[in-house]
Amino acid sequence: MLDDDTRDAQTKREDDLVDTVVASFAAAPDPRLREVMQSLTRHLHAFVRDVRLTEAEWNAGIAFLTDAGHITDDRRQEFILLSDVLGLSMQTVAINNEAHGDATEATVFGPFFVGDAPLIENGGDIAGDAPGEACWVEGSVRDTEGAPIPGARIEVWEADEDGFYDVQYSDDRVAGRAHLFSDEEGTFRFWGLTPTPYPIPDDGPVGRLLAAVGRSPMRASHLHFMVSAPGRRTLVTHIFVRGDELLASDSVFGVKESLIMDFDRQRAGATTPDGRDLGGAPWSRTRFDIVLAPSAEER
Amino acid sequence: MLDDDTRDAQTKREDDLVDTVVASFAAAPDPRLREVMQSLTRHLHAFVRDVRLTEAEWNAGIAFLTDAGHITDDRRQEFILLSDVLGLSMQTVAINNEAHGDATEATVFGPFFVGDAPLIENGGDIAGDAPGEACWVEGSVRDTEGAPIPGARIEVWEADEDGFYDVQYSDDRVAGRAHLFSDEEGTFRFWGLTPTPYPIPDDGPVGRLLAAVGRSPMRASHLHFMVSAPGRRTLVTHIFVRGDELLASDSVFGVKESLIMDFDRQRAGATTPDGRDLGGAPWSRTRFDIVLAPSAEER
Repeated sequence: MLDDDTRDAQTKREDDLVDTVVASFAAAPDPRLREVMQSLTRHLHAFVRDVRLTEAEWNAGIAFLTDAGHITDDRRQEFILLSDVLGLSMQTVAINNEAHGDATEATVFGPFFVGDAPLIENGGDIAGDAPGEACWVEGSVRDTEGAPIPGARIEVWEADEDGFYDVQYSDDRVAGRAHLFSDEEGTFRFWGLTPTPYPIPDDGPVGRLLAAVGRSPMRASHLHFMVSAPGRRTLVTHIFVRGDELLASDSVFGVKESLIMDFDRQRAGATTPDGRDLGGAPWSRTRFDIVLAPSAEER
Repeated sequence: MLDDDTRDAQTKREDDLVDTVVASFAAAPDPRLREVMQSLTRHLHAFVRDVRLTEAEWNAGIAFLTDAGHITDDRRQEFILLSDVLGLSMQTVAINNEAHGDATEATVFGPFFVGDAPLIENGGDIAGDAPGEACWVEGSVRDTEGAPIPGARIEVWEADEDGFYDVQYSDDRVAGRAHLFSDEEGTFRFWGLTPTPYPIPDDGPVGRLLAAVGRSPMRASHLHFMVSAPGRRTLVTHIFVRGDELLASDSVFGVKESLIMDFDRQRAGATTPDGRDLGGAPWSRTRFDIVLAPSAEER
């Protein structure tokens, strides 16, 4: 046991070190960089001191980051996965999309968006040749005053029933993604696929961490949206499937209660909204009414 | 501006997310891993929330870690450099080498230790063919009760006058490092080199960060020691050179006032302690009296 004087000396050593490191950033020419680095320093030192990090644990942390760096390449981003499974991606989304009236909540962007997805007409099909159960999606886009927003650009993308996005296919074909525009009444509709669950890549250090703490790598089933319109804050979000057993354990903490939708399963052969012939296959339908906050300049 | 209700809703969203992520680790089978991950989660979320991290800054952070991972290999460890320049390495050292009576303070280990450095006799030379000014180093090893410790193992290593350790040479020769043992009186003496300053590797993301915040990559001049004896806590430390202008800005925060020693410059041709003929070159001398804390089991 340390006596009180020795304990005081130890606390002073640790406090002084934090102060010295914080002061080392005081002359940073960019005040925002100074603020960020000083805050990061204080919080990381508080972590190390709170848990009384051992040297073996420090070494394990260095090895973890090294492994994450070495598995990361143009197609795999382990540091984003790390941010995701610590909820830091979702917290950054929350901070940058603050609550505003009844504006639809945002969630994580994810790594699978592609900027030049094909344009479809309202009522068109985003699935292409991606395998899965057909799903009719319809809804509206309006502002926080309730006024419809015609001409909003709606990007949609999703995994197929095997849990793969088209960019994970071995060829270059485009499937399960498109963009469309809301019509004069601010409404939209398209055919997609009923969302299915899939794991985040779990063969690297992040996957090993999840296994060590008893967490699942699975993402709850979801369909991605990015919706933009002049004078409105761009919304990046998902809709989730009510009843999905993974809703409470989404590996990246993307689920928000307000984003869980009813996906109504339709019996095989049921008449479709647009008369499309699905060859007697079962299908589902859902509705997503979107509310866009004003952009920062408009608030 | 957000009204109070909206502000409350926003705060609740952010609080709830932290609670959810912390809870996700609750079932970790290893209680220590659970403690570490829950604390890390709380502190990193507090950082992101305190600075209101923007999505552009989050992206910059991911890019920084990615660059650090890609420059790291068997000979270069950018994550250790990052830990060093944030003072986290030194804080971990402080936590794991708590103040104990007048025990000598520890400092950072650094990446340049080699486990099988040659044995020298007391009074021998560690420099080998490393270039630099000769320096006579002598001192004692005792316990916190003041009793001499004979037979303590003393590892010493240092950079040459060009700022390079032998492991940075292009060949495999060993220079500027050795180990010796304290004698029956607990004293030791050897020839080394007068320490000189050098930069940490600054051609990677950590170097760019230091440049952006206006910090120097230079380390204050120092000589490394690792001292071990049965029943004693192993001491990893440096001694620094009084008067070195870099003492107040050491890039890794390794300097402690108690570790700054007088290195007395001797005129060219001055008689050496052991009669060694330095060919008329100037030299220096210093003294380092070492106090080892009891090991954890002995305290």
